[in-house]
Amino acid sequence: MYRSHNCGELNAAHINTEVTLSGWVQKSRDKGFIVWVDLRDRYGITQLVFDEERTSKEMMERAQKLGREFVIQVKGKVIERTSKNANMPTGEIEILVSELIILNKAMLPPFTIEDDTDGGEDLRMKYRYLDIRRNPVKNNLIFRSKVSMAVRSFLASNGFIEVETPYLIKSTPEGARDFVVPSRMNEGQFYALPQSPQTFKQLLMVGGMDKYFQIVKCFRDEDLRADRQPEFTQIDCEMAFVEQEDILTIFEELTRHLLKEINGVEVAKFPRMLFDDAMRLYGNDKPDIRFGMEFGELNDIAQHKDFGVFNSAELVIGIAVPGANAYTRKEIDKLIDWVKRPQVGALGMIYARCNDDGSYKSSVDKFYDQDDLAQWAARTGAKPGDLICVLSGPTTKVRAQLSALRMELAERLGLRKANEFAPLWVIDFPLLELDEETGHYHAMHHPFTSPKPGQLALLDTDPGAVKANAYDLVLNGNEIGGGSIRIHDKETQATMFKHLGFTAEEAKEQFGFLMDAFQYGAPPHGGLAFGLDRLVAILGGQETIRDFIAFPKNNRGRDVMIDAPASLDKEQLDELKLQIVINN
Amino acid sequence: MYRSHNCGELNAAHINTEVTLSGWVQKSRDKGFIVWVDLRDRYGITQLVFDEERTSKEMMERAQKLGREFVIQVKGKVIERTSKNANMPTGEIEILVSELIILNKAMLPPFTIEDDTDGGEDLRMKYRYLDIRRNPVKNNLIFRSKVSMAVRSFLASNGFIEVETPYLIKSTPEGARDFVVPSRMNEGQFYALPQSPQTFKQLLMVGGMDKYFQIVKCFRDEDLRADRQPEFTQIDCEMAFVEQEDILTIFEELTRHLLKEINGVEVAKFPRMLFDDAMRLYGNDKPDIRFGMEFGELNDIAQHKDFGVFNSAELVIGIAVPGANAYTRKEIDKLIDWVKRPQVGALGMIYARCNDDGSYKSSVDKFYDQDDLAQWAARTGAKPGDLICVLSGPTTKVRAQLSALRMELAERLGLRKANEFAPLWVIDFPLLELDEETGHYHAMHHPFTSPKPGQLALLDTDPGAVKANAYDLVLNGNEIGGGSIRIHDKETQATMFKHLGFTAEEAKEQFGFLMDAFQYGAPPHGGLAFGLDRLVAILGGQETIRDFIAFPKNNRGRDVMIDAPASLDKEQLDELKLQIVINN
Repeated sequence: MYRSHNCGELNAAHINTEVTLSGWVQKSRDKGFIVWVDLRDRYGITQLVFDEERTSKEMMERAQKLGREFVIQVKGKVIERTSKNANMPTGEIEILVSELIILNKAMLPPFTIEDDTDGGEDLRMKYRYLDIRRNPVKNNLIFRSKVSMAVRSFLASNGFIEVETPYLIKSTPEGARDFVVPSRMNEGQFYALPQSPQTFKQLLMVGGMDKYFQIVKCFRDEDLRADRQPEFTQIDCEMAFVEQEDILTIFEELTRHLLKEINGVEVAKFPRMLFDDAMRLYGNDKPDIRFGMEFGELNDIAQHKDFGVFNSAELVIGIAVPGANAYTRKEIDKLIDWVKRPQVGALGMIYARCNDDGSYKSSVDKFYDQDDLAQWAARTGAKPGDLICVLSGPTTKVRAQLSALRMELAERLGLRKANEFAPLWVIDFPLLELDEETGHYHAMHHPFTSPKPGQLALLDTDPGAVKANAYDLVLNGNEIGGGSIRIHDKETQATMFKHLGFTAEEAKEQFGFLMDAFQYGAPPHGGLAFGLDRLVAILGGQETIRDFIAFPKNNRGRDVMIDAPASLDKEQLDELKLQIVINN
Repeated sequence: MYRSHNCGELNAAHINTEVTLSGWVQKSRDKGFIVWVDLRDRYGITQLVFDEERTSKEMMERAQKLGREFVIQVKGKVIERTSKNANMPTGEIEILVSELIILNKAMLPPFTIEDDTDGGEDLRMKYRYLDIRRNPVKNNLIFRSKVSMAVRSFLASNGFIEVETPYLIKSTPEGARDFVVPSRMNEGQFYALPQSPQTFKQLLMVGGMDKYFQIVKCFRDEDLRADRQPEFTQIDCEMAFVEQEDILTIFEELTRHLLKEINGVEVAKFPRMLFDDAMRLYGNDKPDIRFGMEFGELNDIAQHKDFGVFNSAELVIGIAVPGANAYTRKEIDKLIDWVKRPQVGALGMIYARCNDDGSYKSSVDKFYDQDDLAQWAARTGAKPGDLICVLSGPTTKVRAQLSALRMELAERLGLRKANEFAPLWVIDFPLLELDEETGHYHAMHHPFTSPKPGQLALLDTDPGAVKANAYDLVLNGNEIGGGSIRIHDKETQATMFKHLGFTAEEAKEQFGFLMDAFQYGAPPHGGLAFGLDRLVAILGGQETIRDFIAFPKNNRGRDVMIDAPASLDKEQLDELKLQIVINN
């Protein structure tokens, strides 16, 4: 062992102890007659001291030449510091070094290894192994490990069995694009990497495993949006002989357990919201309910005048922005520009100021009088001092636009507090979703989700109206988990595939094994999967997942540190019977 | 919830309780006036009773029609059984059913869902979801989950951080063949699936993570030998600032913890054996030391007569087979045939019977007298009643042959007891291994393993003699783990690559990131990886891993249940810019 103690544990109680420490040189201060070196490891920083009086000349010279990030081992005595540092656990002591061994030299790192580094994102990713030495990244990874352990011990103590499902499975064109893996032993054939262990966990239920979980990598070959990764981690869970209520209960307990264990926060019973209400009140199926600003629907009190923009709109909705009557005209104009950006896509924004004296001043005063505006205020919950922002247009679009505005303003107003946790179940999702491009319906959750009892017949007449036994767990405006009660009989599953546009042959070829399994005694079952990357980030008080992943990929799907993906040798391609054909 | 209790928990204390149970019909006995049904779930079996007196005619008829593996829900009262079954936890009671709901029918399963099934391997794999309902498979999977949890909690409580490393990495031609994954976003380029997270865990050490572990899937595209899987699970561990002794200590503790927690077995300090001794005494780098039968080297006492077979051999070695003097001539001839099988490859076998009166009778009596044979007996440790088996030939081959014979005989003699655990460290492995086909040396462990201090120079003069800081953990004749102290400076790593036949350019292209990392302050580090599949199988008292894996692949790498791998749609291939070229 290269050390007797780590760099985070020595204090006044150890004074006069002979110790051996190893670590990295964080920094050194050379006053000529005395040299202090901050020695760092995973556990903390301990100050080393070399001085003319007590250190040999030879060692003094070597100490003076130590560079940042050199790896050294020292032996020495713990002594009391003359000027103590109450801000660090080891601040009472320092080590008077009697032996100094350089274990490895270091070139000057390309960025500073400090909490606030001067390294940009690209540089940090290329030298991720140096980035991980920084406390913010290191602590995130340790935090992630702690969350995973807490999840596992909760589920194990509740009778869940962790079962590893295969990574080399079969490609199914349904849903997102698969990553595929050519098989050398089965020429011309491919495995696929799982987008989730969905069918396997259902087969485990058919197999009587009863309560399953797995913390597992999943893969999706999508064009990467910001903060998405081609490989991501799921806490995947499934239970047999359960109804929706049972699933919500146990995973609410898990989430409450994590908030308590990890964040020390006690949360009351999670509220539940219908999908339809979430869309109506927040324009969003994952509303952040840490703050209000619920939508007010204004059609009946905004379409009775001559204002054509509103009159021609399918939906007129507004929110009250607390305290924003103080915004200058210029600030409001900027806000209007913001909603007109292509990413949001509104055509404009109407606003009404709620003055402290109870009067209103709107951008459409020539159409609406004080009584109208008072009704808008009542409907949006606006108080004196607030600003009412109103958008109009086709229902789906205008809701999304106002939702974006609501989130942006909440961010600016500091209403999205990282240390406040507002979980929410969103339930009764639609079974199907219309793809506006193709005009076809596809499964909103996945093709194995069961419709609400009695709604199967509706599939023929009004597919968009069918609700599913599907639910999402939302935390602070992020979907952290989602699941459903599954179909467990062959006929219903076949009906679903038919409505999703599968021919009977396609259904059999791709999912025949599952429908076969349903014929051999499948129990009612359902489950839920958490996105671990996001869950950890949110519990950690952050919203970007990248720094909770040890070695993330960039948004071209590249690992810039190891420079992957890369070309293959021709022999490798030949063995796989593959040829690359790039025409364009 | 479809049940108030599970099928394993009801006993006399519950008599008169109204309960709801759900599960599978294990079997039913219909006496006409009374029907008993065994209801099964993950937790056990509970007997249901329907009878003419207390059950409605309608329900009686439905009960009589229940088939094997039907999924049912029943409500009823717990009553005392008239004839109790002391062999099952629920044997004191049965359920007088008041309500019977068929949740799902079942076709007749293709094999019986019993501990001893009539299903062959192929059928069981195709319907693995039914196979998992059988206790032996179900219990293995639950056992595996328990082992994983015990590993995790031991390592976490010893300060190890579980870090997830990426699955989409870069292909490196060194070592076994990679599975590769074409990248759509980076045309013509490929990721590789990791054969192990080796370089990433080393980079985590460079990153200061200090103690890392991960239970992780790894992938190897090898022609599958029996009981190998293309995807397998490793307990992957790495530590910084450690020497070999530290690694052996902590992972010996882990293994001892598992044996205690999982098997209830206390094991003393693990013996250690030099690789050279293991080869000399057992012909094998993973000796099963639950029994003796150590090799006796006989050159000096077998090459002094006129027996040409021995005289021309590089090595003459024998083992004493306890009690095998009782073997008939026919049995011994069969044994000779066994060693001559191509899988073993010996040219013949010489034997000497050790008679109870202290005399010997050998197959080479015309060359060797009683004194010679007494010396053989002394050298092999043979006692009266034993049989000495002697092989001869080139050292490497003859050792492997005698090792195979030793294991086979131990198996036949019942010396390989499943409930006896004999762990062993094998240390001081050679750094390099000569590939007899190519005449080149390759890394015995991997290219990142450090040579023993001071032996680097030997690489130029006698590469085969260089020993490594490498060690294996052996349990009952199986390698369950292996590792090494790594190289942590760029120069040594470059020297290693050179000796492994890499040009400087190849080394830089494939492992430049690692050698770069070594220049920025890499600490001394080392680690170990356990093969979880095998570890679990051995702790479970078995030697085949397949039934400790939920969904294994066959030896063509196929999942016969989901029928993977499979062909891809042409569009998928086009998107990946790939064409399949099968010429032969």
